[in-house]
Amino acid sequence: MLTRRRLKELARLHQRKYREALGQYLVEGVRLLEAALESQAPLVEVLVTEEARRRPEVRKLVARVSVPVAVVSEPVMARLSDVETSQGVLAVARLRWEAPEHLMRCRCILALDGLQDPGNAGTILRSAAWFGVEAVVAGAGTVDLYNPKVVRAAMGSHWDLTLVRAGDLAALLRHLQRKGFSCYGADLEGIPAPRWQPRSPAVLVLGNEAHGLRPAVQKQLAERVMVPGTVRRRATESLNVAMAATVLLYEWLGRCRQW
Amino acid sequence: MLTRRRLKELARLHQRKYREALGQYLVEGVRLLEAALESQAPLVEVLVTEEARRRPEVRKLVARVSVPVAVVSEPVMARLSDVETSQGVLAVARLRWEAPEHLMRCRCILALDGLQDPGNAGTILRSAAWFGVEAVVAGAGTVDLYNPKVVRAAMGSHWDLTLVRAGDLAALLRHLQRKGFSCYGADLEGIPAPRWQPRSPAVLVLGNEAHGLRPAVQKQLAERVMVPGTVRRRATESLNVAMAATVLLYEWLGRCRQW
Repeated sequence: MLTRRRLKELARLHQRKYREALGQYLVEGVRLLEAALESQAPLVEVLVTEEARRRPEVRKLVARVSVPVAVVSEPVMARLSDVETSQGVLAVARLRWEAPEHLMRCRCILALDGLQDPGNAGTILRSAAWFGVEAVVAGAGTVDLYNPKVVRAAMGSHWDLTLVRAGDLAALLRHLQRKGFSCYGADLEGIPAPRWQPRSPAVLVLGNEAHGLRPAVQKQLAERVMVPGTVRRRATESLNVAMAATVLLYEWLGRCRQW
Repeated sequence: MLTRRRLKELARLHQRKYREALGQYLVEGVRLLEAALESQAPLVEVLVTEEARRRPEVRKLVARVSVPVAVVSEPVMARLSDVETSQGVLAVARLRWEAPEHLMRCRCILALDGLQDPGNAGTILRSAAWFGVEAVVAGAGTVDLYNPKVVRAAMGSHWDLTLVRAGDLAALLRHLQRKGFSCYGADLEGIPAPRWQPRSPAVLVLGNEAHGLRPAVQKQLAERVMVPGTVRRRATESLNVAMAATVLLYEWLGRCRQW
């Protein structure tokens, strides 16, 4: 049973400040709960509607859950859900930010410098995990990586990545550089991706959708890289940042391996 | 001035059947109108709110428009808009599906086999135009490429592409094959993208987000291709289809050119 107080608390997890205060965030839907169980994500509790619990796939999942499971009404679920049509399955997980020292053990780091769109951020996390990036750094001004929309688009990749926050991303990059990291940035003015030869360990920085990388961050870069396109287009001005990021990650981590 | 009848007609453009019946679709926001003007897209009329028209960027754009411009109230704009906070700028454009014969002149074609998510479809159009794909074929069961969410995510790339519909995509692929096209498909069971050597002319087919390519379509493929990822991930099951498509387009069209 969910107390009124806990319900109010959970509803507030849609807001960043309450997520931070409580150290918890919402994980919605069947596939995400499945990914959470696969990767032994730090769950706190699971909420299901009576109707959802009757579905075999949900029953099977719930049987594997080792944290409390509360059955809630449809209106309560609708209130907590971030999507139009809830699947009736919602988990609460413990939010985790690692200290920057954890980055020292990594070879491949992605950093976000003011990236705004939650869908883009989530998709980037998913691509990063797919290609084997070890850590993602969220610079100040970046959308909260535990935002429900980010979590949904990331499809479980939060649990494959070390997540770090940086109040001053430029300073952190400077520090990493001194420790032997090469810093690269995605930028339309950079060299074409096929000519990019990243050293290791390295950091790849992605900027804001409209304004790109901030000057202070640009100063820390060994090289800027772009994804070349055709010259024949008239209306298409640029590549979506998540697409550009994915191509650069592929060029960096996906292409070079032996498959 | 907008008549009540025309207003009702425009509101219906959110539905596919009315877009088809009227042969028109909605194009929303400042950047999209700008792209439409740059690429001489077939506009029908432009709607702006009084407030938007006062903004210098909008005034400049409106001055370049050669079709009727109607000033509408905020509530009317809100009714027609597909986003939470409208920019107060909305254009109506003529929808265009080309006949399949147009494909014969192309070297690089992308085909969608039941792709469902409008954000994915729009992003894929944007990447396709960026890398120089000439035509996109929407197979039956694919989200309408003139859906407002697709149009928004595509960011103007509709006007750089030849768009074709196929009631029977497998039959169309068979026909293209007889005309000398090589057909490839994105599939997790395929060969790794770095080993892919597409011939020319060619078609790359992308499947449904959950179910992939249909068997009838698979039968027409010369080869299936996948985007390799790391083996270390636990929670991240797959790459988003738009990401996979973008990497394959990069490998096909972006990497091979001299930059």
